[in-house]
Amino acid sequence: MAAAYFENNFRATASFELYVRSLPPERSFLVSAGLEQALDYLERVRFQPEGIEYLRRQSVFAHVSSAFFDYLRDFRFSGEVWAMPEGTPVFGEEPLLRVTAPIIEAQIVETFLLSTLLFQTSIASKAARVVGAADGRGVVEFGTRRAHGPEAGVLAARAAFVGGCIGTSNVEAGQRFGIPIFGTLAHSFVMAYTDEEEAFRRFQRLFPEHAVLLVDTYDTLAAIEKIIHAGLRPKSVRLDSGDLGKLSHEVRRRLDQAGLQDTHIFASGDLDEFAIADLLAGGAQVDAFGVGTALATSKDAPALGGVYKLVDVESDEGPSYRAKFSEEKVTYPGRKQVFRFRDEAGSFREDVIACETERYPDAEPLLSCVMRQGKRLAPSPSLQGIQERARKELAKLPAGCRSLRSPQTYPVRFSGDLERLLEDVRDRLAGVVRAPAPAKRS
Amino acid sequence: MAAAYFENNFRATASFELYVRSLPPERSFLVSAGLEQALDYLERVRFQPEGIEYLRRQSVFAHVSSAFFDYLRDFRFSGEVWAMPEGTPVFGEEPLLRVTAPIIEAQIVETFLLSTLLFQTSIASKAARVVGAADGRGVVEFGTRRAHGPEAGVLAARAAFVGGCIGTSNVEAGQRFGIPIFGTLAHSFVMAYTDEEEAFRRFQRLFPEHAVLLVDTYDTLAAIEKIIHAGLRPKSVRLDSGDLGKLSHEVRRRLDQAGLQDTHIFASGDLDEFAIADLLAGGAQVDAFGVGTALATSKDAPALGGVYKLVDVESDEGPSYRAKFSEEKVTYPGRKQVFRFRDEAGSFREDVIACETERYPDAEPLLSCVMRQGKRLAPSPSLQGIQERARKELAKLPAGCRSLRSPQTYPVRFSGDLERLLEDVRDRLAGVVRAPAPAKRS
Repeated sequence: MAAAYFENNFRATASFELYVRSLPPERSFLVSAGLEQALDYLERVRFQPEGIEYLRRQSVFAHVSSAFFDYLRDFRFSGEVWAMPEGTPVFGEEPLLRVTAPIIEAQIVETFLLSTLLFQTSIASKAARVVGAADGRGVVEFGTRRAHGPEAGVLAARAAFVGGCIGTSNVEAGQRFGIPIFGTLAHSFVMAYTDEEEAFRRFQRLFPEHAVLLVDTYDTLAAIEKIIHAGLRPKSVRLDSGDLGKLSHEVRRRLDQAGLQDTHIFASGDLDEFAIADLLAGGAQVDAFGVGTALATSKDAPALGGVYKLVDVESDEGPSYRAKFSEEKVTYPGRKQVFRFRDEAGSFREDVIACETERYPDAEPLLSCVMRQGKRLAPSPSLQGIQERARKELAKLPAGCRSLRSPQTYPVRFSGDLERLLEDVRDRLAGVVRAPAPAKRS
Repeated sequence: MAAAYFENNFRATASFELYVRSLPPERSFLVSAGLEQALDYLERVRFQPEGIEYLRRQSVFAHVSSAFFDYLRDFRFSGEVWAMPEGTPVFGEEPLLRVTAPIIEAQIVETFLLSTLLFQTSIASKAARVVGAADGRGVVEFGTRRAHGPEAGVLAARAAFVGGCIGTSNVEAGQRFGIPIFGTLAHSFVMAYTDEEEAFRRFQRLFPEHAVLLVDTYDTLAAIEKIIHAGLRPKSVRLDSGDLGKLSHEVRRRLDQAGLQDTHIFASGDLDEFAIADLLAGGAQVDAFGVGTALATSKDAPALGGVYKLVDVESDEGPSYRAKFSEEKVTYPGRKQVFRFRDEAGSFREDVIACETERYPDAEPLLSCVMRQGKRLAPSPSLQGIQERARKELAKLPAGCRSLRSPQTYPVRFSGDLERLLEDVRDRLAGVVRAPAPAKRS
């Protein structure tokens, strides 16, 4: 497509919006994440000489001029980006990001932007559910081994932190993003020693303030007795199999009886938000949770139906709107803004997706300009700041939207102006309409 | 754990096996993939100075000697690896890979190996199902935008090719792995022009032998009429929404009537193996499929329950076996081999997971040594060769195992010797047993 735009001398500036069409049935809200990696990419995207050579050799490009490959050699992203800050609760149809750039540039970056924002948003959203279910207890992201490759594991750890996890077992994510790292021991460490108690003693001695001893390799309660017998005072014991609720009570009782009131109970083992909610509803004595596969893959909703749609193309007479009317899928034309209305307490009441030029003084516009001419306008917020934003904003969601089971749907509507613009475009059948009085961008 | 092994001077050589405990209900077989990236990692894994500095600063390491950080500085993987070739059909409990190395090395590489092999194996397995459903028609992997980040998209394209896809829309995967790349146009290209027919003409002119024209931006049948009216002869038209089966008939009829018998019909739009099977069962006139999200995320089974388990630790008296007996999860001790029995026609009859030292002259051992002292023993097979292996081997699965719905379970059993070894280890309660007559490794 880039070659076709180039060879046809189609260089107009176009706007594309990235949004999730509708939430998966398993989600009642999303938490935006991944913008930092998206902007970093836009600032640094280049074609390498080997890449250009590879393309040139493809038979599909037989009729493409060498001027196009020269264009790729000098390729930079020079556009403007509007986006929601990371850590913002977001819903279906609401643009997370808008790119305005010469159409080839906007198109070349599409796939990277989609996979980056959709993936991190899906994990941050899942994390928010899991953290909500844990009801104030810490949740550590544990899922790298089951993530979609090692790099997905690192990004999942970042997104999980945005969604409220207190840290990760992924040390590389700790180094790259400053996320607190949490270690424990695996069954293999216990199995490597011929004696479980010896394994515990040796681990505890090296990490006197941090050890989280895994107690289910052979028999959970017997392992607790060994810890007590050896006089160890681990920071935590980790339950990883069996009836976690029942075990937690018995383990707590024995630890307390032995004077180990300060030793926490950490639970893991195929947990998700439902398992955690059920454990806590049953009164489980668990202080913190490790959540792996379900979190790092957003297992119940592993993909978001996100798209990147052309909404207008600039021309001498102003923006020329674009919309799409294929059978199930309509795309609203024009650059948009998302306005969030709140009640007196700051809780979200309703979102309105409107034309960018509309004004709602009582509402907060969620998209702001973050990049011009391919350069970021401001330094990135800290990841801690993003997490804090998410925490505060999620608390403002209507409680019914935060239910794990059968949550209420948050009200989002399109503005009257936007509906009219859609109808105008539809009326012209060919799918394009010139704005009668071109709206100037703010 | 590495620090704890190091500080306790625990340097014994240990063996770990990587396997999927049980297949997800949605899968009746897996196709191994990802070994190339796993071995590449093992040859190249190093700790960078910044990484070591980062670790040193962590309070959890306050009691760890600087000798440990020196060890990390010189860290290399020096072990031995046995593995199934990529493209091998594989089942639950069957080791895909075994690492034998000084225990710290074997442990440090665990997470990378798991995420690499499990992810690619899950995608190759999904691809095999989708390709099977397409019944000889080509399937192109289309899912990068919904993959778990950009790098996951590239690896998904590779794994999908192993599983039988004819190519990918991911150009980077094409460049890195030599996978055929397939392009098409997006709705945005059609929308960018004020006239759909003009968009088609311009695209077709640049790619006369390769153009795949997307026809559903506004109205599929009207778009077909425009193509005919403009006298275009595209390689394919792509249907992406609506009732694909019904549309395919009407589109085929109109194309044929206009003399465009050579123009293929390419279908896409939230497809998976079930949608494809249903379309073809209904007689859809589709020549090839583009499959995205369902494939690149293995959406119905986005994670495999893969583990990496310690099975023995070498000592002066020979291998000392390890097993695990926590409530739901048993790990069989000792290094294993997977033996595949076939009937006269070469079809798989049964697999036996046995001690490495057992011999079954009538069966094929699936694991072979691929790395010694941290170096690969042979050049990597070509990706085309891997795909071919998978194709041939999948054809030897019992037909019932290949059914999309309610497939039959392929018979896999543990050998008598292995069951006895497990019982021996269990009898010693502490979970460790010395071999009475140490088996020598072959």
